[in-house]
Amino acid sequence: MNTMSPDESQHDVAPKEIANRPRKNTAFEQLDRPGSVRINVQGAFIVDDDSFTPPRSGSPPRYTGPGETKDIRLPHHKTGVSHIAVDIGGSLAKCVYFTQDPNGQGGKLSFKNFETEHIDDLISFMDSLVNGKRSGQGDCLVKKKDRLHIMATGGGAYKYYDKIKEALGVEIYREDEMECLIVGLDFFITEIPDEVFTYSEEDPMQFAERRVDIYPYLLVNIGSGVSMIKVSGPQQFQRIGGSSLGGGTLWGLLSLLTSARSFDEMLGMAENGDNAKVDMLVGDIYGGGYGRIGLKSSTIASSFGKVFKKQVEYGTEYCPESSTATNNDGKNRGFEPEDISRSLLYAVSNNIGQIAYLQAQNHGLEHIYFGGSFIRGHKQTMNTLSYAIKFWSKGEKKAYFLRHEGYLGSVGAFIRRQPRNWGRRYSASDEYPYPGIRSTGEEA
Amino acid sequence: MNTMSPDESQHDVAPKEIANRPRKNTAFEQLDRPGSVRINVQGAFIVDDDSFTPPRSGSPPRYTGPGETKDIRLPHHKTGVSHIAVDIGGSLAKCVYFTQDPNGQGGKLSFKNFETEHIDDLISFMDSLVNGKRSGQGDCLVKKKDRLHIMATGGGAYKYYDKIKEALGVEIYREDEMECLIVGLDFFITEIPDEVFTYSEEDPMQFAERRVDIYPYLLVNIGSGVSMIKVSGPQQFQRIGGSSLGGGTLWGLLSLLTSARSFDEMLGMAENGDNAKVDMLVGDIYGGGYGRIGLKSSTIASSFGKVFKKQVEYGTEYCPESSTATNNDGKNRGFEPEDISRSLLYAVSNNIGQIAYLQAQNHGLEHIYFGGSFIRGHKQTMNTLSYAIKFWSKGEKKAYFLRHEGYLGSVGAFIRRQPRNWGRRYSASDEYPYPGIRSTGEEA
Repeated sequence: MNTMSPDESQHDVAPKEIANRPRKNTAFEQLDRPGSVRINVQGAFIVDDDSFTPPRSGSPPRYTGPGETKDIRLPHHKTGVSHIAVDIGGSLAKCVYFTQDPNGQGGKLSFKNFETEHIDDLISFMDSLVNGKRSGQGDCLVKKKDRLHIMATGGGAYKYYDKIKEALGVEIYREDEMECLIVGLDFFITEIPDEVFTYSEEDPMQFAERRVDIYPYLLVNIGSGVSMIKVSGPQQFQRIGGSSLGGGTLWGLLSLLTSARSFDEMLGMAENGDNAKVDMLVGDIYGGGYGRIGLKSSTIASSFGKVFKKQVEYGTEYCPESSTATNNDGKNRGFEPEDISRSLLYAVSNNIGQIAYLQAQNHGLEHIYFGGSFIRGHKQTMNTLSYAIKFWSKGEKKAYFLRHEGYLGSVGAFIRRQPRNWGRRYSASDEYPYPGIRSTGEEA
Repeated sequence: MNTMSPDESQHDVAPKEIANRPRKNTAFEQLDRPGSVRINVQGAFIVDDDSFTPPRSGSPPRYTGPGETKDIRLPHHKTGVSHIAVDIGGSLAKCVYFTQDPNGQGGKLSFKNFETEHIDDLISFMDSLVNGKRSGQGDCLVKKKDRLHIMATGGGAYKYYDKIKEALGVEIYREDEMECLIVGLDFFITEIPDEVFTYSEEDPMQFAERRVDIYPYLLVNIGSGVSMIKVSGPQQFQRIGGSSLGGGTLWGLLSLLTSARSFDEMLGMAENGDNAKVDMLVGDIYGGGYGRIGLKSSTIASSFGKVFKKQVEYGTEYCPESSTATNNDGKNRGFEPEDISRSLLYAVSNNIGQIAYLQAQNHGLEHIYFGGSFIRGHKQTMNTLSYAIKFWSKGEKKAYFLRHEGYLGSVGAFIRRQPRNWGRRYSASDEYPYPGIRSTGEEA
């Protein structure tokens, strides 16, 4: 579902169970007011296989590879919902929607993304969710009052507002992007078991212990660009910084420098590369380490630092055609697309890690959560980010990742207007108000 | 002299005045002990034209364009010197040497750089300085005891130590790189008028007022990679951070993505580019600004963020050949090498500026000096770095530049072993010890 091949997404259609499901008016009584149908998240869990029961406590964590975004089962939510949610970013649009279980055992949240460039695919997908099947004349078969509303966030919620509204004929409620991100993150941290984890090469995927007091923390959201948000409490947040060197930079440069045409293809290349072929290491400059200031021989002194002199030497232009797997002549030029990919992945990830550390340090934050579609559950990426935080903070700060990292904003938009304390995992025993959710006065 | 065309540097020979000058033994009496011939820097000034007098105070500052490294005249230094100095970095080797004025009016420091890759050119240049002309049999015409010594710093001082020693047959004194950088910078800040300046588009080149109390400050040295050094006092310094995204990254990536084969050619391209053609701006995502968090429509959200989707659209590989000035077909692909160059220059400079600000903020430093061969007196680069510091610090911190930015390390190595307070510009009235110079017990 995360594969970014543009062709694939054009063939997407809504799952049958949604597009064709029988609509019961009773379930959509209050559709004119989004959020008035409450989402009961009690007992929610990530569906790691096709079972209808949550994993046993203590069972070994299962690694979620790149490209997989697991459904979240909501066993206690028996009714329909009033809305779907979408987060339309610069490169990707992330959609979250609910489907009832055909056997009446609650339902589930599903996740799907589209390239923002192919906005019409997203609109047609949302149309099938909102309006159901259309008649031969293009008329909707679902009555207007029964239609799902759309909660939208991200820049595209503004840029494409008119277009989407006109195409779907339903109300679109726009939500602030940063607010949705933190509401979504709070939800994942607090409600979903086995969602948050730490990562390192030695200790691959360790699910985090649940923390009662989650504030303050730093959210580093890496999409096309990077946003860093300091969160001090429910609804208390501030965008303290960011970087233009993010996913868009990696994907853009690698689409110029390699034959890869999807994000996952690029990450795959990086896995097989050796960055020392293009990066200048401390050892390349010193002939060894620079012990006095603690720089090891293997430390990267300059990303792509070996390239310039070789290019000048060859006197020729670099062309990715001649360096692809289909043509081994590329070796003559000295640069393999795999090595280039790995170097750039390291450069971007390291850089984000360093800036995140410095921001966290400046603001006295110990816990750093990395979200956004850049990460994609990719081991090297997470390892590099983790290592950077550990290295710079001398082990004092910690990097956390999420299995639904790309969907913080859309999940935030989905649940943002719920009354607080509704169906919480720990709601019976918990004195804290539902984090990140504005009180609507509608107590459960 | 700064032009990085590799062909050019191969034709370099030592200036006639050095290679052929008559050697007087009296001037080299103490050559066996480097630093024992003291450099008198009293009244030193940058030679902006061919005059032998310093510029009148109050005369308008003259902009030093890229590629120019002016001599520094030392009107009161009457004798010869014992050494030359070289700073051998990952990409460039920077050489500083003294020549006596033929008319007996003191002498001058001259500056010359070589690509580290062409280390033999550097060695042959140093050979002509150290050993003078060789006889037809390759024997030196200068007696061993009269030969100049070499003060060397940078990684290459270790990596190429044996090679240089063997080739030149003189002693090489290796100096710590970070120490040389700060000694050189202290020298330029304290001794050389019209050396340090601030830069902005509105207020191009403003020479800085002399500061009596220069500590603490942050030095950001940008060569192939980036080093950030906190300087708290003479000889008190700490490398607090750095980045692998530096000059080597810009030069390496642009040598892959454009037909440019010299640093200055790349900078020239960047001057004529429009980064909005490849960068994703906030306006591209939002259709306007994101006022709530203070992001303007023109803010760069993602460097190279527009590239991926276009590349996928075209379905073709990018080749710099078809985008060069010699072939206008490149336009069909949508990416001009000028736009790519500008985007990458912005990305690298902005990023360094942000990290520099964050480090300065963490360590309570107000003054930030940018040095290193990346800058090259280039207006866009300086403007971007300045803007980043101003933006992030809300005007509280200041970026300073130097006209000899690439030669901090080599000048530091050149003067490092001098006795303190020797021939200082303000030595008569100044109570502060010469900054950055270790006391050798040889007071002037």
